[in-house]
Amino acid sequence: MAQRHPDPTDTPAVPVTGDALAGYLRARATEFLRALRLHRETGGQSGGAPARARAGAGGVVGGTEESVDAARALRRSARRISGSLHTFRPLLDPDWSEEMRPELAWLSGTLGLEHAYEARLERLLLALQRLSGAAVLPGRTAAPAAVGPGGGPDRPAATAERSALTVGAAKAGALLERQLTLARTRAHSTALQALGSSRFHAVADKVALLASEVPLAPAAPTTALHTLARAAEERLTDAVAALPLVTAGHPYNAEALVHGLSPEPSPHPQDGPWHQVRLLLRLHRYAHEVLHGTGTAAPVDLRLLTAGQALNRHRDASEAAAAAAQAARTPRITPATAYALGVLHADQRHEVEASRFTFQQAWQKHTANAP
Amino acid sequence: MAQRHPDPTDTPAVPVTGDALAGYLRARATEFLRALRLHRETGGQSGGAPARARAGAGGVVGGTEESVDAARALRRSARRISGSLHTFRPLLDPDWSEEMRPELAWLSGTLGLEHAYEARLERLLLALQRLSGAAVLPGRTAAPAAVGPGGGPDRPAATAERSALTVGAAKAGALLERQLTLARTRAHSTALQALGSSRFHAVADKVALLASEVPLAPAAPTTALHTLARAAEERLTDAVAALPLVTAGHPYNAEALVHGLSPEPSPHPQDGPWHQVRLLLRLHRYAHEVLHGTGTAAPVDLRLLTAGQALNRHRDASEAAAAAAQAARTPRITPATAYALGVLHADQRHEVEASRFTFQQAWQKHTANAP
Repeated sequence: MAQRHPDPTDTPAVPVTGDALAGYLRARATEFLRALRLHRETGGQSGGAPARARAGAGGVVGGTEESVDAARALRRSARRISGSLHTFRPLLDPDWSEEMRPELAWLSGTLGLEHAYEARLERLLLALQRLSGAAVLPGRTAAPAAVGPGGGPDRPAATAERSALTVGAAKAGALLERQLTLARTRAHSTALQALGSSRFHAVADKVALLASEVPLAPAAPTTALHTLARAAEERLTDAVAALPLVTAGHPYNAEALVHGLSPEPSPHPQDGPWHQVRLLLRLHRYAHEVLHGTGTAAPVDLRLLTAGQALNRHRDASEAAAAAAQAARTPRITPATAYALGVLHADQRHEVEASRFTFQQAWQKHTANAP
Repeated sequence: MAQRHPDPTDTPAVPVTGDALAGYLRARATEFLRALRLHRETGGQSGGAPARARAGAGGVVGGTEESVDAARALRRSARRISGSLHTFRPLLDPDWSEEMRPELAWLSGTLGLEHAYEARLERLLLALQRLSGAAVLPGRTAAPAAVGPGGGPDRPAATAERSALTVGAAKAGALLERQLTLARTRAHSTALQALGSSRFHAVADKVALLASEVPLAPAAPTTALHTLARAAEERLTDAVAALPLVTAGHPYNAEALVHGLSPEPSPHPQDGPWHQVRLLLRLHRYAHEVLHGTGTAAPVDLRLLTAGQALNRHRDASEAAAAAAQAARTPRITPATAYALGVLHADQRHEVEASRFTFQQAWQKHTANAP
């Protein structure tokens, strides 16, 4: 029993060599260039603050819907190239790889920020709407309900209290709208500047080279691809094993809102390990794509997909909760606004908890099904 | 198939007659009188505002712990007599029964209020403590944590924000303490007055008579006891069937916080059917006690017990959430206080949702096991 970890990937059913990695990287680079061309053609760099009418389209540096899609495709390719450089580093020219990675990370980070603020605002406004049972979307005045939930007319006093709180939800919405739109506008400008910068042009040139030739390291062993993919999976498995999954699997464990009134404005430290798993799951998925392809015929583990989506929701809710808490620190807000933001914060923290539960369920099914 | 509901209780394994009801009522009446005597002996009517030191003991009109227990026993017996009069009404003298029921309801309601306010305050302070990770119990100043959740020292700005919010939780706790203690003191006075009133003495006299002789209706059929108990169970089953149990069985359905920002200060109307089931479940349990006895040998359905406890928690959390929302309407509170109350409200609404989930699970197991 000297060999403790007999590695099944030493004898893959279908031999996969460095060619698979090169092919994958070339394809992603080509996608990147296509997205960049489309983005330029569709007026992506026309500038100006994002119009509200485009909200929800998910767009960076937007003009038309096509340019929004193009920007998303840019980020998508950049993430995959960057992730593959990380996982399969020993197979690639080290100098080139070390230089390329941080530039791609900068690019997808910069391009993603505007969309992130936009999605966060939308999530928070939808939650406010759900919580108050009234439209609090910007531009509309929240109309106080004429009749109580009980169905009957109310005492005048109750009606006065009611409109005060309805105003609270509307004011909270307006405050979040103001703050997140400002952040989004700034992110928009930053992204515009980035796309016009010499730094960006240098990345684009490197990706253009990558589309024709992938700088593989000399003499990498044939089996290394599988071994490295397996290592990425093990990093994921280890990180998941360190998560409090037993707690997460108990519905309504009330864990996510512990310290909900603790005054740390940044996302909860307890969220960190989950964010980390989210990134490792993504790397694992990209490595899987390298080995098995990205086409419709490629095998997809739906449970792993569900798990990944749960972690995306976890991240989004975590950041939305932090944004609500942050907004509550704005000077001179009314108590009604602050109350609404408190309810909203707790609501989003429960979304965090719900996402962990969903992840736990999906992961459990995934591992039960694993070979 | 003319007989659609073949009633198994028509041929009970052990024949139970009106005697069982009379015995049950006599026993409860005796308990009532014993509790009343104990309550008087232990200084229950010594008066004065409840001292904080007794908080958590659950007591009405308290002095010693014994008098608190005695008051609880009084309520317990009154509820059981009242419930049995309701369920088995056709077996009892109608005039006597009609006169007795509202008086017992008045008594247990009046005696229960002080305890309810006390328990509500304790629930809310514990929740605040859990949410803020700091002691916010009255009399203590909430100490701002010296070190951030991340473990490292913080920027001065973050520390300033932090103490602001810790103060928010502490202020929210102090506000709730003030409001609920006032309500409790009033309930205490009301209970004291009630226990000294001629109305109470009239009830006590009636219960004393009941302890020796139960006014049964003449010529009630032997099988009626089982039939009436079955009818109480059917009322429960029908009410449960009308609950949104499918939704409740999905963890994190986010149903309880819908309209969490709707401005109705009273408990959510969606809670009503659950409260109703809680009462029907209690009546069913009392009817079961009449038929099968109350001793340690009596069969107890643990799942039904769990279901009942879940509904108690549902009621408590619902009322605590309403108290937090009500406190947020206090004029001139700070935004930090209002924010903390908003988080607290949402937290308790999630307790409501969690209780429904627990009930759904217990009820499902109960019915799966039913004959």
